[in-house]
Amino acid sequence: MNVSFAIDSDDVHRAAERIRGHVLRTPCIGSESLSQLFGCDVSFKAENLQHVGAFKARGAVNAVRSLSDDQAACGVVTHSSGNHAAALARAAQQRGIKAFVVMPRDSSPNKLDAVRGYGVEPILCEPTTESRHQTAERVRQETGATLVHPYDDPQVIAGQGTVGLEILEQVHWPDVILVPVGGGGLLAGILSIAKATRPDVRVIAVEPAWADDTARSLQAGSPQPVHRYDTVADGLRTSVGTLTFPIIQQYVDDLLLVSEQAILSATRMLAERVRLVAEPSGAVTLAGLVENADRFAGQRVVAVVSGGNLSFGHCTLGQV
Amino acid sequence: MNVSFAIDSDDVHRAAERIRGHVLRTPCIGSESLSQLFGCDVSFKAENLQHVGAFKARGAVNAVRSLSDDQAACGVVTHSSGNHAAALARAAQQRGIKAFVVMPRDSSPNKLDAVRGYGVEPILCEPTTESRHQTAERVRQETGATLVHPYDDPQVIAGQGTVGLEILEQVHWPDVILVPVGGGGLLAGILSIAKATRPDVRVIAVEPAWADDTARSLQAGSPQPVHRYDTVADGLRTSVGTLTFPIIQQYVDDLLLVSEQAILSATRMLAERVRLVAEPSGAVTLAGLVENADRFAGQRVVAVVSGGNLSFGHCTLGQV
Repeated sequence: MNVSFAIDSDDVHRAAERIRGHVLRTPCIGSESLSQLFGCDVSFKAENLQHVGAFKARGAVNAVRSLSDDQAACGVVTHSSGNHAAALARAAQQRGIKAFVVMPRDSSPNKLDAVRGYGVEPILCEPTTESRHQTAERVRQETGATLVHPYDDPQVIAGQGTVGLEILEQVHWPDVILVPVGGGGLLAGILSIAKATRPDVRVIAVEPAWADDTARSLQAGSPQPVHRYDTVADGLRTSVGTLTFPIIQQYVDDLLLVSEQAILSATRMLAERVRLVAEPSGAVTLAGLVENADRFAGQRVVAVVSGGNLSFGHCTLGQV
Repeated sequence: MNVSFAIDSDDVHRAAERIRGHVLRTPCIGSESLSQLFGCDVSFKAENLQHVGAFKARGAVNAVRSLSDDQAACGVVTHSSGNHAAALARAAQQRGIKAFVVMPRDSSPNKLDAVRGYGVEPILCEPTTESRHQTAERVRQETGATLVHPYDDPQVIAGQGTVGLEILEQVHWPDVILVPVGGGGLLAGILSIAKATRPDVRVIAVEPAWADDTARSLQAGSPQPVHRYDTVADGLRTSVGTLTFPIIQQYVDDLLLVSEQAILSATRMLAERVRLVAEPSGAVTLAGLVENADRFAGQRVVAVVSGGNLSFGHCTLGQV
């Protein structure tokens, strides 16, 4: 194991112990219908069914429960417009400590409400990366709270890795695990455990073509920023991290870029065929299968459905 | 155990052995968010994630696998406009025998396609109860196929009862199990196992107020027909059965009638808060909780989500 990596498989095992009982062991759900359609044996690791509706609950709980009592007394701080915000608020509430959550003032009402639901009033900032970072840093200095980054944090990466640990326990000899990549916490965590214990299992990243920073980073050999912020998979608009990238670079078997159309189609397919509500970021793995079915013919494929927080608006779910 | 009942708990145990590996052991999914909202500990037995998207897969597999080879050689026949049709087609395909599925000619295209997906071309009849029965009977006489009724069949009831067996294995000391009732196969099956092994667990039926035949049947002391066929919970428009009713009458702890508004609200709540796609018939149990939260305060409640086959039409799932 290269000692320069942020975590190794032992960290994932420790995370699994630490978060047990505080997050759900989500099911892997097989789909006969999609297996038939794509000519492979596909199941879905349903992290959309996780607390807060996303795998982010894992890393947040692991980070918060890794703090010493002295650290915990000052609380935690983060900046996030997405699922990590609610996940950290929940983890802090569970441990009975303060969370300071910096969110852009144009965040959607339901995302703000999700954080408020865990007893935390979001600290609003301007909708720019600079304002988010500056505001979080100011709060950190004023309060002494520990920053828990959405993905570039060893305990967060280790927590997300427990998704991989469970897959390897739940699915008999998978050939391939498909994992969404945004900041790379989930992917780096899964790689850390899978490649240490079952190197024969291929772990393939899936990324929107409109947010192809990880693909470009792998080509360039160093983390590259995202160029555009308009993919429907809004959870994957972030650039790959400085801690996550080396792990990904070392271990990932391949990366698939998927179209916006395939992401939308996969989101709908998960609802209609698997009866799971996935957010587009969570459906990119199925999109990768849709666009590359030939590559996976006859194989046992596990697609991680990373989250399920859709904004329903006035959608009436068809007949309803 | 009253010997006049169609099944007893041993039949459910035998069914569990028979269907193992042919249906999914679906998860019970806890919801912190709804538990907080309703002041109880609620989880959902997610039969919407079952093969064919409904618990009906269980009874159909059990019925088909209970046939002798001689019986099986002549195939099976049923009439159904809903999930039982696809479930029986699937079970027959798995055993490699013929299925004759009589469906009203005004059945929705996706329900017809679901049956075709298992290699069975539906036999169309007029959209009346008489035509369905007569057509199925004609086919039965012509082919020698065994009729597998959607609910008034002992092996079907026993198969559905495995839902209850799994709940009792998966959930630590539930106080209450909420079960939708249409024809009563699922309810009678769950009652047969739960009341034999854990009589302290209350089993409460939930029925649309617009399809209140079971409520009226319990008052009258004998099966009463449905009066109207317009509840949005279309899977529950059937009248309670002659085999299922005695079991229900003997064992059910209570019955809740729910409004159409509560059913729609619960369907949406399952998608938004639990990230499960439920059909309205599958969401009536949550509707029962929504409308009677005070009764279940502080209790451990398992709500059976019986199916997830929604017709999405042009719904775009909100932002998608």
